Amino acid sequence: MKRYAAEFVGTFWLVLGGCGSAVLAAAFPQLGIGFAGVALAFGLTVLTMAFAIGHISGCHLNPAVSVGLWAGGRFATKDLLPYIVAQVLGGVVAGGVLFLIASGKPGFEVAGGFASNGFGAHSPGGYSMQAAFACEVVMTAMFLVIILGATDVRAPAGFAPIAIGLGLTLIHLISIPVTNTSVNPARSTGVALYVGGWAVEQLWLFWVAPIAGALLGAGVYRFIGKSGD
Amino acid sequence: MKRYAAEFVGTFWLVLGGCGSAVLAAAFPQLGIGFAGVALAFGLTVLTMAFAIGHISGCHLNPAVSVGLWAGGRFATKDLLPYIVAQVLGGVVAGGVLFLIASGKPGFEVAGGFASNGFGAHSPGGYSMQAAFACEVVMTAMFLVIILGATDVRAPAGFAPIAIGLGLTLIHLISIPVTNTSVNPARSTGVALYVGGWAVEQLWLFWVAPIAGALLGAGVYRFIGKSGD
Amino acid sequence: MKRYAAEFVGTFWLVLGGCGSAVLAAAFPQLGIGFAGVALAFGLTVLTMAFAIGHISGCHLNPAVSVGLWAGGRFATKDLLPYIVAQVLGGVVAGGVLFLIASGKPGFEVAGGFASNGFGAHSPGGYSMQAAFACEVVMTAMFLVIILGATDVRAPAGFAPIAIGLGLTLIHLISIPVTNTSVNPARSTGVALYVGGWAVEQLWLFWVAPIAGALLGAGVYRFIGKSGD
Amino acid sequence: MKRYAAEFVGTFWLVLGGCGSAVLAAAFPQLGIGFAGVALAFGLTVLTMAFAIGHISGCHLNPAVSVGLWAGGRFATKDLLPYIVAQVLGGVVAGGVLFLIASGKPGFEVAGGFASNGFGAHSPGGYSMQAAFACEVVMTAMFLVIILGATDVRAPAGFAPIAIGLGLTLIHLISIPVTNTSVNPARSTGVALYVGGWAVEQLWLFWVAPIAGALLGAGVYRFIGKSGD
Repeated sequence: MKRYAAEFVGTFWLVLGGCGSAVLAAAFPQLGIGFAGVALAFGLTVLTMAFAIGHISGCHLNPAVSVGLWAGGRFATKDLLPYIVAQVLGGVVAGGVLFLIASGKPGFEVAGGFASNGFGAHSPGGYSMQAAFACEVVMTAMFLVIILGATDVRAPAGFAPIAIGLGLTLIHLISIPVTNTSVNPARSTGVALYVGGWAVEQLWLFWVAPIAGALLGAGVYRFIGKSGD
Repeated sequence: MKRYAAEFVGTFWLVLGGCGSAVLAAAFPQLGIGFAGVALAFGLTVLTMAFAIGHISGCHLNPAVSVGLWAGGRFATKDLLPYIVAQVLGGVVAGGVLFLIASGKPGFEVAGGFASNGFGAHSPGGYSMQAAFACEVVMTAMFLVIILGATDVRAPAGFAPIAIGLGLTLIHLISIPVTNTSVNPARSTGVALYVGGWAVEQLWLFWVAPIAGALLGAGVYRFIGKSGD
Repeated sequence: MKRYAAEFVGTFWLVLGGCGSAVLAAAFPQLGIGFAGVALAFGLTVLTMAFAIGHISGCHLNPAVSVGLWAGGRFATKDLLPYIVAQVLGGVVAGGVLFLIASGKPGFEVAGGFASNGFGAHSPGGYSMQAAFACEVVMTAMFLVIILGATDVRAPAGFAPIAIGLGLTLIHLISIPVTNTSVNPARSTGVALYVGGWAVEQLWLFWVAPIAGALLGAGVYRFIGKSGD
Repeated sequence: MKRYAAEFVGTFWLVLGGCGSAVLAAAFPQLGIGFAGVALAFGLTVLTMAFAIGHISGCHLNPAVSVGLWAGGRFATKDLLPYIVAQVLGGVVAGGVLFLIASGKPGFEVAGGFASNGFGAHSPGGYSMQAAFACEVVMTAMFLVIILGATDVRAPAGFAPIAIGLGLTLIHLISIPVTNTSVNPARSTGVALYVGGWAVEQLWLFWVAPIAGALLGAGVYRFIGKSGD
C-alpha cells in the first residue's frame, strides 16, 4: 500500500512540476524559461523523487516504465496494474491542482493546451502523426535503455536518479517541438482530461507509442546488457 | 553556537545568491539569465551549502524546513527557535549586502521589488492570493518530501545535497510567476524589510503557507516512508 | 559482439539526441533551446549512456575517444577498428531516424544544415578553416584530458560519467559558433551524409582535427598524470 | 613539477572555456548562450578539471584559492608561489589560444572587451568601483567557504568537484553584471593583457579583492567549521 502511495505522490509531482513549469513559466514575457527550462523541470521531478522515494517504490512514475521494467524482468506482474492505477491517479490529481493554481491568473484558459501532448495540428511544431509516433517510440525505448542500464548491478551505485532524471531532461530537449513530449501515458492523461476534445482524442497515441517503445527498449538492453557475456 | 553560525552563513548565501541573481542578472538586456537562471541560482545556493556546512548544522537555511524536520522527528525542539533566529538574521544581513552592491548601479531603485515575494498586484504574473497560498503550500510540502526522503537512511548516501538543491531549482522553475517563489520565510523576510510597504504587508503569507506546507509534507512522508512497512 | 552493439546504440543516441535537439528545438520561435540547450543535450547523451552502458563497452561513442584511449594505453589495438565501425554505423542510422522525424514537419529541408559541422561559409559564425582546425584540436585534446583524468584509478569512483558528459556540454558551450562543434568524427559523419555537398567535402577536417587533438590530449595527460611521480 | 603542470593545464582550461564561451558564444544572434551559459561554462571548467586533475594537484586553478587554502591550513607555504606562477601562465596562454580562434572570424576586435573584468564604465551593468570591490570580496569569501567545507573530511567523499564547480557557476549567475565576475586573478590577467589599456589599469582590483575575500572566507570557515566543537 505504501509503495502505491509513493507512486501516486511521485507521479503527482512529475505532472505538477513538469506540466506546471510549462503552463505557468515557459512563455512568461521576456523572462520565461522556454523549452529548455521545461525540459529541466521534467527531469528534476524524476531526479528528486528517485532520491526521495526510490527506496520505497522504485520510483517508476510512468506506466511505460513499469511495463518496460516488467518486460526486462525487473518488476513483478502482480504489481503492474496497481502501479499504473496509482500513477494515473497521481497525474490526474496533479492536473487538478495545477488547474487550481493556473486559474488564479486573470485570463487563463485551459483551451491554451494546458501542456497536453498532441500531433498534427496540435503538435507544437506541426509534426505529423507518423513523426510523432516514431519519435515517442524511439524516445521511450532509449529512456528504458538508460533506466535498465543505470540500475544494472554493474553500474555505479547511487547515481541512477541522476542518469534517469537528466535522461528525461534530454528527451524533452529533443522532442518538445514534436509532441510536447510524453514518453509517459500518466503525464499525458493527467492534463488531457482537463482539456477534453482533441487532447483526449489524441491520447491513444501517448499510451500506445510509449508502451511500444518501452518494450523495444527492454529488448535492446536485454541484447546489449546481458551479463555473463 | 557554531551550528547557529553555520545556519546564519548558509541562509546569508541563499538570500544573497538567489535574490542577488534575480535583482542583478535576471533582466539584463539581451544576455540576462531569466527565471531559469534565477531558479538555478537558488538551487545552487542550497546545493553548495549542503556540501559545505551540512556536516556542521544539517544545512536547513529555512524556518519552514526546520519546522518540517522537527515535525518529521528529525530535529530537536530546543534547537528550533535559535535556528530560525539565525536564519532570519542571515537573510536580513544578505538583503543589506545585496542592497549595498545593487545600489552601486546608477538608477537602481529598491521599489523595483528587490526580489520580494508577493501576490495579487505584486505577483509577477498577477496570480490571486488564493492561488499564491495554494502554490506555496504544495511546493513547500513537496520540498519536505524531497528533503525527508533524500536524507532517509535507505536513500543513497552523499547525494542529498544534489536532490535537495535541484529540488529547490525545480520549485522555482514552476512557481516564480506565481509568487516570485518563497517556500522560505527567511528568504522572504530578508528582502521585504528593505522594500517595506506592500512587501511587508504581504509577508504573513510567506510565513504561514510555507510552514503549513512543511507540516503537510512531513505528514505525507511519514505516511509513505514509514520503514518496517 | 555485445560491446560493439553497445557502442552502436550509444553513438546512435549521441547523434540522435545531440543533433536532434539542434535540428528540432534550437531555433523554435520564442521558446527554442538555443546553443545552450543543444550543449546540454549533447552532454547528457554521453552522461546517460556512460551510466547505462559504461559497464558494457566503456562507452566511447566517438572514434577520436577510442584513438585517444588507445594512445593513453587504456584500449586494445584489436578493438579499435570494430569500435570505430560500430560508432559510425550508429551515427549514420541516427541521422536516418532524425531525418524521418524532422521531415514530418511541413517545409523541413535538409539543406538547412541538419546540424552538420562546417567551417568558413559553413561555420555558424563564419570562422576560418584555420580557426576551426585549431578549435577542434584543442577542444578534443582537453576532452581526452578530462576522460583520462576522470577515469584514472586515483579519481573518485563512479563520477566519471558526470565529468565526461558535462565536459562535452562545456565544449559545446564554447565552440558551437566556430564549427557547430564536432570533436567526434562519428557525429559529423552521421549527419553530413544526408546533407551531401559541402558537408561531405568539409568532413575531412572533422576526422583529422579531433583525432589529432585526441593524440595530443593523451600526451598531455600522460605527462601530467603519470602516477608514481 | 607534474603538479605545477597540472595547475597550468587546468587554469588554461578555466580561462579558455569560461572566457571562450563569453567571447565566442554569449551574444550570438538569436541562439547565444547569454550570461547563464557563460556561468555554466565557467563552473564546468572547474568541475571537469577537479575530477581530472584533483588527484594530481588539488586543482586550485586560482591564486585566490591557493591563498585561501594556505590561510585555512590546507596548503604548504613553499608551494604557494609556484602554483600562482603556473596558474597565471596557464591563463595567459589560454588568452592567446582564444585570441587565435576568435580572430578567425571576420570583424573580430579585442577592443570589444575579450571577457575582461572591469568596474565603473567597464562594468557590464555600470556598477561603481565600490560595488565591484564589495562584490568580488563577498563572492570569493563564499567560494572559499564552499571549497573548504566541501573538501572537509566530514563532507561526503567524491562530491567536492560538483559543489565547487557549480559554486563557481552560481557566483557567475549573480555577479557577471557587476564585474564580469573574476574571483580569480589568473582568469582576469589571462585576458586583460591582450586588451591592454583600461583592462590592465583596473586589474589591481581583481587581484586585491579576490585575495582579500579568500582570506575572509578562510576565517569564516575556520570559525564555523572547527571540528571537535
